[in-house]
Amino acid sequence: MTDPGVTTTHPTAELDNTVHQRARLGILTVLNEAERADFVYLRDALGITDGNLSSNLQVLQDAGYVKIDKTFDGKRPRTWVTATKAGRKALASEVAILKAIIARADGAR
Amino acid sequence: MTDPGVTTTHPTAELDNTVHQRARLGILTVLNEAERADFVYLRDALGITDGNLSSNLQVLQDAGYVKIDKTFDGKRPRTWVTATKAGRKALASEVAILKAIIARADGAR
Repeated sequence: MTDPGVTTTHPTAELDNTVHQRARLGILTVLNEAERADFVYLRDALGITDGNLSSNLQVLQDAGYVKIDKTFDGKRPRTWVTATKAGRKALASEVAILKAIIARADGAR
Repeated sequence: MTDPGVTTTHPTAELDNTVHQRARLGILTVLNEAERADFVYLRDALGITDGNLSSNLQVLQDAGYVKIDKTFDGKRPRTWVTATKAGRKALASEVAILKAIIARADGAR
């Protein structure tokens, strides 16, 4: 640790911020547990604001990690969110990297 | 998962972005393994730019999670970074929350 010439790559370098960011990690783990979840459920489960949820869903949708369907429950609009296959795969990669980080953090104690 | 009236709090809601952010999680895990690390070592180990490392070290220093010491190695300036007790505690909390998230992600498969 005292030799600056040694270049190793730490597992955190492999983290993809599209999935690692706190709210997005929450969205994907909730969706991984459920077939689909609606906007209100996600917002309440994650304890974030409408605006925060919307902008993070947009990032995940742009990455192809979630699919968003707007439906009507009678006259009430509902927004359903589903994780895509790519989204589940991205979450699995994140979890694998987190396990490597945890193993190093635990090993150092 | 289909009842929006149920308000549960997901473990991601407890994540502290000061520690969770990718580069900062990297800095704290490297420092947790070492007594101290210098700027160049951290930069190379994490594969980030000087500017990115500087700004994230500033956030960690402002939070009281790292201590930064500027020394001279002959005429060459060196910047040493050490995790504080609060920084190690914050990393331990992050790791505990990550374990809870992983347990849920793994359980859902």
